[in-house]
Amino acid sequence: MLEMIDLKKKLSKPQFKKTMVELERRINELQRACKDAGIPTILVFEGLEAAGKGTCINRLMQPLDPRGFKVNPIHPPTELEKFWPSLVRFWKLLPARGRLAIFDHSWYEELMAARVRGEATQTKWQRAFEEILAFERQQADDGSVIVKFWMHISKKEQARRFKEMDANKALKWKIGKQEWKQHDDYGRHLKAAEEMMERTSTARAPWIIVESHDRRFATVKVFETLISTWEAALETSRLRSKTAEAKKSPDKLVPRNVTVLSKLDMTQKLSRAEYERQVDKLQDRLRELEHVIYSKRVPVVICYEGCDAAGKGGNIKRIVGNLDPRGFEVIPIAAPTKEELAHHYLWRFANCMPKAGHITIFDRTWYGRVMVERIEGFCEPSAWQRAYREINEFEAHLAGYGTVIVKFWLHIDQAEQLRRFKERQRLKWKQWKLTDEDWRNRKKWPQYEAAINDMLANTSTSYAPWTIIEANDKLFARIKALRTVVDAIEKKL
Amino acid sequence: MLEMIDLKKKLSKPQFKKTMVELERRINELQRACKDAGIPTILVFEGLEAAGKGTCINRLMQPLDPRGFKVNPIHPPTELEKFWPSLVRFWKLLPARGRLAIFDHSWYEELMAARVRGEATQTKWQRAFEEILAFERQQADDGSVIVKFWMHISKKEQARRFKEMDANKALKWKIGKQEWKQHDDYGRHLKAAEEMMERTSTARAPWIIVESHDRRFATVKVFETLISTWEAALETSRLRSKTAEAKKSPDKLVPRNVTVLSKLDMTQKLSRAEYERQVDKLQDRLRELEHVIYSKRVPVVICYEGCDAAGKGGNIKRIVGNLDPRGFEVIPIAAPTKEELAHHYLWRFANCMPKAGHITIFDRTWYGRVMVERIEGFCEPSAWQRAYREINEFEAHLAGYGTVIVKFWLHIDQAEQLRRFKERQRLKWKQWKLTDEDWRNRKKWPQYEAAINDMLANTSTSYAPWTIIEANDKLFARIKALRTVVDAIEKKL
Repeated sequence: MLEMIDLKKKLSKPQFKKTMVELERRINELQRACKDAGIPTILVFEGLEAAGKGTCINRLMQPLDPRGFKVNPIHPPTELEKFWPSLVRFWKLLPARGRLAIFDHSWYEELMAARVRGEATQTKWQRAFEEILAFERQQADDGSVIVKFWMHISKKEQARRFKEMDANKALKWKIGKQEWKQHDDYGRHLKAAEEMMERTSTARAPWIIVESHDRRFATVKVFETLISTWEAALETSRLRSKTAEAKKSPDKLVPRNVTVLSKLDMTQKLSRAEYERQVDKLQDRLRELEHVIYSKRVPVVICYEGCDAAGKGGNIKRIVGNLDPRGFEVIPIAAPTKEELAHHYLWRFANCMPKAGHITIFDRTWYGRVMVERIEGFCEPSAWQRAYREINEFEAHLAGYGTVIVKFWLHIDQAEQLRRFKERQRLKWKQWKLTDEDWRNRKKWPQYEAAINDMLANTSTSYAPWTIIEANDKLFARIKALRTVVDAIEKKL
Repeated sequence: MLEMIDLKKKLSKPQFKKTMVELERRINELQRACKDAGIPTILVFEGLEAAGKGTCINRLMQPLDPRGFKVNPIHPPTELEKFWPSLVRFWKLLPARGRLAIFDHSWYEELMAARVRGEATQTKWQRAFEEILAFERQQADDGSVIVKFWMHISKKEQARRFKEMDANKALKWKIGKQEWKQHDDYGRHLKAAEEMMERTSTARAPWIIVESHDRRFATVKVFETLISTWEAALETSRLRSKTAEAKKSPDKLVPRNVTVLSKLDMTQKLSRAEYERQVDKLQDRLRELEHVIYSKRVPVVICYEGCDAAGKGGNIKRIVGNLDPRGFEVIPIAAPTKEELAHHYLWRFANCMPKAGHITIFDRTWYGRVMVERIEGFCEPSAWQRAYREINEFEAHLAGYGTVIVKFWLHIDQAEQLRRFKERQRLKWKQWKLTDEDWRNRKKWPQYEAAINDMLANTSTSYAPWTIIEANDKLFARIKALRTVVDAIEKKL
């Protein structure tokens, strides 16, 4: 494919200068329009060494308002970065609504390099493609504009540029063994790039091949592509905004009579004596396991969801009661901040995933998308409907890296909740725990039950199963949670 | 000093249990009170290996609301972290108002380690103490509560604990050569710790020695210390809030007749031909230097301040016009976000300092504190008055690490500003650049001139000098800025 490209395309200097005046003004206008429309833009620049990515990005920066973009130079992952699943560091760099992120190399680089070195097995390779496709689709579904440029030069041209740089005192250091090695392997790099483009060029995240022998031609092509993509995105955004407000409304859930939850045995309990006997043993065991997973570099994610007053806080305290604080973190999830709202809903969670060997406990999670956001109409129906798949993909990426994932639904029945609410009202030091919102949520019990049922059905996977905890009795709930965590980690080891 | 400590202090289990119920409830109440009062808290735990920092921190976490605190385990800096001045990574971890940051090891660890290994010269060592004292004072002045705990055990007890851990399969890995080496050097560690405490125990950031042979005693001491510190801080905060509102008011600046600015030769200019001749040469030279500083790992900070419409944007464009985008970043500074407002005003700048070998250009800077915030009364007079010193200390820390700092004041006179404002009104594609605020600021010209004069007088240092650029003629201004940057980098190399 790539060898068929006509690399002779050229633009004269006067032609170029004349064209650029208009293109620059247009880019500047469109950037502001996208900012106002809240459209995030992701630009990826890939290409062989000396193809001119840097020069092209610099040229693109000139007309842009610096308050609205960021250039992310991507290097092979450091030792530290390898302690997270590969896409985590890219999640963090994704642009907020209205902003532009330019990637000089990207999530493709590591994959390309491994492929050329023959390090990745076919299976790994295929899975990585799937993960990238899911990652880009999720961003596009969330409204991101994505364009990926492949800057292309011939083997001969690459050699010419290397020699030119080598003759320049200040640039000499850039051309070392590795670069000449890439040059020798030009053919294999090309093959890998072709496969990459075939597999990952999609309608909403296309690869654009940029013939880069002539820098002026390449610049104009990049500018024009971005302009037409932005124009199309603004048009779509205009059409959408006309209908969006009408669409966002609380979901009309039909409560079901029989759900997973209605079949639970809510009478299960533990005596205080039995509890005391077991809790220390399990906590000690978990502390041991904390050290083992640290030395084996296994990350653990524990998710807590549950009814209001189900006892999540107290349950979490027993999980961490005997742990070394250097090894775990509890992340309480509140309503999203302005900055979080300006990103994909998974962004804030990707930002606090555990480092390999550590435990992260989420007190509420990304499942808010298919629960409160669905029930209250905080997002469009299409958004929460596709969230099941997105969440499964997201968790699969974590699990694929070796993460142990435990998800708890802490369940109490309506009578028990009422009893606990009233206790909170009565006891002075517990009053801060009870808000009007808790009472409002309580009225929506049947809707929640239906939503929970859907959630459990759609997201309990082999690699990230749900555990329902009957939590009318707090002691029983704590022991069941502790045992589930211990079992899940032991199984992994 | 430390050998005099009575390590026999003890608490029985029943005594402990009884005491803790009340202490836990009080800690929980006070944490919420500090949250409401917007008081940030910094707790530092230092101590020799196996002194029980982890256990103590875990115990402290139990009564705390997890939404309000974060534990930061501090390791020796990674290779990557060494690419920034040492305090930068701690700046990033400082708590927002109302939050609590717990440091398990801290900015003292690296220093202690270097001291014991005999790696730091006396001069370096003294400077590091000064920098830490300034860092902590800045936080305290900003309202932070700071307590530093030294968990103390005897050499004999350390040996006993090491052996106990060594006998435990899950903990064995924690006790290696390094730990036994520390044990052998117990005396030297103690000496270093003593000096550290003598030099850095201040009224508002005291060291508290915690006798840690008995874990129960240690826990109670930490709890009680935190409680009394929080109580005192809340009392101070109550007193302050009564007077604070009255204090915050625009500064009544007395404009001076003769300032540095009034003596500038504003008629300096360059012909287009002369400009074209010089600009390419300087840009090429800067691109060369960009590569040299990269390979020598020299960071560069370029600060732009100036009148509205002085041409900062266009000037910056010429600085970066020929640079490799992987080597630099432009940070535009707008009004602070909610999160930024919840931190020390220097926090957001510390968060985007250049990695060694890179260039960061700030379009407006931390000098907003002594300009717009002073003039508009956004902070108390005492806050902007102490800012001169804080800024000098902050820049000295960067310079001490080897950072090249260039600071520009772009100056135009009132007539030229009016001409540019009117042009912006006239030209459609420039209208977005002009806001009502620009007109409002223009009316305060004399106040700004006085504030600028104070700023230049108080913060032009040998390690971070100001350069005033006469910017009535844009071409002259661009060449002067380019040349200043080139000269500053060459001088460093």
